[in-house]
Amino acid sequence: MFDWIDVRSQARAKAGLARRLHPRPATSAELDLASNDYLGLSRDKRVAGAAAAATLRWGAGSTGSRLVTGSTELHTELEYELASFCGAQAALVFSSGYLANLAVLTALSGPGTAIVADQQVHASLIDGCRLSKADVAVAGHNDPAQVTHALATRGKRRALVVTESVFSVDGDLAPLPALAETCGKHGSGLIIDDAHGLGVRGDGGRGAVAEAGLSKAPNVLTTVTLSKSLGSQGGAVLGPSRVIRHLVDTARTFIFDTGLAPSSAAAALTALRVLREEPELPTRCREVATQLSTRLREAGLAVSEPSAAVVSVRAPSAEAAVAWAEGCRAAGVRVGCFRPPSVPDQISRLRLTARANLTEAEIDRAVQVITETAPR
Amino acid sequence: MFDWIDVRSQARAKAGLARRLHPRPATSAELDLASNDYLGLSRDKRVAGAAAAATLRWGAGSTGSRLVTGSTELHTELEYELASFCGAQAALVFSSGYLANLAVLTALSGPGTAIVADQQVHASLIDGCRLSKADVAVAGHNDPAQVTHALATRGKRRALVVTESVFSVDGDLAPLPALAETCGKHGSGLIIDDAHGLGVRGDGGRGAVAEAGLSKAPNVLTTVTLSKSLGSQGGAVLGPSRVIRHLVDTARTFIFDTGLAPSSAAAALTALRVLREEPELPTRCREVATQLSTRLREAGLAVSEPSAAVVSVRAPSAEAAVAWAEGCRAAGVRVGCFRPPSVPDQISRLRLTARANLTEAEIDRAVQVITETAPR
Ligand SMILES: Cc1ncc(COP(=O)(O)O)c(C=O)c1O
Ligand SMILES: Cc1ncc(COP(=O)(O)O)c(C=O)c1O
Repeated sequence: MFDWIDVRSQARAKAGLARRLHPRPATSAELDLASNDYLGLSRDKRVAGAAAAATLRWGAGSTGSRLVTGSTELHTELEYELASFCGAQAALVFSSGYLANLAVLTALSGPGTAIVADQQVHASLIDGCRLSKADVAVAGHNDPAQVTHALATRGKRRALVVTESVFSVDGDLAPLPALAETCGKHGSGLIIDDAHGLGVRGDGGRGAVAEAGLSKAPNVLTTVTLSKSLGSQGGAVLGPSRVIRHLVDTARTFIFDTGLAPSSAAAALTALRVLREEPELPTRCREVATQLSTRLREAGLAVSEPSAAVVSVRAPSAEAAVAWAEGCRAAGVRVGCFRPPSVPDQISRLRLTARANLTEAEIDRAVQVITETAPR
Repeated sequence: MFDWIDVRSQARAKAGLARRLHPRPATSAELDLASNDYLGLSRDKRVAGAAAAATLRWGAGSTGSRLVTGSTELHTELEYELASFCGAQAALVFSSGYLANLAVLTALSGPGTAIVADQQVHASLIDGCRLSKADVAVAGHNDPAQVTHALATRGKRRALVVTESVFSVDGDLAPLPALAETCGKHGSGLIIDDAHGLGVRGDGGRGAVAEAGLSKAPNVLTTVTLSKSLGSQGGAVLGPSRVIRHLVDTARTFIFDTGLAPSSAAAALTALRVLREEPELPTRCREVATQLSTRLREAGLAVSEPSAAVVSVRAPSAEAAVAWAEGCRAAGVRVGCFRPPSVPDQISRLRLTARANLTEAEIDRAVQVITETAPR
């Protein structure tokens, strides 16, 4: 029955595209330059302590759909704090960022809608487009002129433009002001996935959408995840109250999914409070990213210009990227290794992430190891 | 821009289909007949204690994709225990049951595949079909003859049949042996969503797939959720090792999603261990369901015949269902209220769930309240 799987798996092994899980222990001396825990909050005592306390108080699971028993007062509090922190009217929490993206795309579109999506958007946004039943057009990466053209020539009355704020693989920034302007002119909604902007960009980490002054725009919806800067799990949609209410009524990935676990809601809530108390964390994270990028470029590597925490370094091939990442791990540094199909342009690379609590000595060690293990 | 939303929302309000969240406090005297916490394990001290300890030990989040930093030794242990408990060769854990269903449908199909799905399958399975790019045919509810006909006349070489084991809304059981037989004859894979079977049916709660003797069948994939009987959050796919490896390499909702939070993995793992130690829990849960159903039917209500924990009671209209559920809540009993689009057949109903730790007095109270508040 599933014999075709073996054929595919052999082909992948040959092309250097087989994947292996590397489960990690609870504590290790390994230096982490691969996680999305950009502010180091996942293991912060306040955050983890609040999560543990919430589990004991509320139970391990939310026990049902948000519409039945899965909404606790913790979820409501988190929604209120998220919206107020980011300057949005309202917020709705999902069990993952992936499902938040599916929700917003499916609930706000349909056969009468034209979607214009940046060529490099995240898999969850692409899947949302596929589920939307809308006409989907792909615009060149960070190319507002192409977006304008697609909006101006669309065959549908309603339209949605879809982008990330900080792109997940290369860490580059979308031209949000230009996109907002063209959406305004052409009567289009604008969906911005701020997964890698929240906690890293904007005043005190309020995100790239707040930074662009778009949090309250009536045609803008922001999606975020609680699993990166906030060190937890889950996702959320932020935007006008009427849109949030519409999601409660119609979004399949909200209605037909178990609510986020109380401990994850409490962790994200506490991380937001830490962020309010320590607004220097995002600045420190961006400084670390700039240092990593500058020093690796000086060492002759093909490094991206970071706009947030993500720094990407190109590798000559998928095999070379795997060998490089394994060389780093052997030397005690964990880096991300991105290969097709996880890269938008078929180019394999190391994906490094800055963390606000990396020390100077750790940055030195990381730069040294990555440089010494680089393919020649 | 989003003015059309107001129009829709007014129409929904008129039809009695507007939804409201009812966030619950951490403790209350309300009697829960609505959650999917079928064994009462979400608040079990062992389960919640292990989840809290895991947060302190591993951090609040898994910090990345399972392929990068999001796999911990806890995830591996949970996968091993899940597979061994259910008698499958291997298992793969996802951040939700919803995303596990999307994974298995998209990674095992494509344009060369015919999918035959039961008419009443869960939204996550339907979305998986929509994302699959396969030819999708819908078979009548629990009608293996229609499935056979669709398989025999399919235009594609590869085929997948999709069903739930215990259906989520009415709690009825799929004819798994007949489906497995026709899939075997017609060279088709069989995907069984055992979300409502795991922990409730089969020897010691090993699930409806184990009960049907299908856990090791080479053409059967089982999906489960950790959010119901196991009292936690997350989902998993169980099946042949080569299929599980294929998911690691290709399933978008595995690759591009943050791994399950350590605390949720620990909660599910501990719940499985409790289940091994207390194999009478599933039996007790089914007894409670039978009692509820029998007594409500004797009181003249239109009640389903439960095959697991779910008992559904028909209501004359959406408005009547809402008023009924609110009447129950006012009397201190929380029940689920399912209306379009959350019902497969447009018939609104109350959805009651049995729980292994409901006392006789609580069952008496529930029956009394539901009967007294019933629409006439
Ligand atoms: C841009 C982007 N959007 C959405 C997601 C999905 O979020 P989550 O992992 O919380 O489901 C991710 C990463 O996982 C991401 O990088
Ligand atoms: C049959 C079925 N499959 C899948 C799911 C999704 O699981 P989860 O809530 O863990 O995402 C649910 C319910 O939520 C369900 O009832």
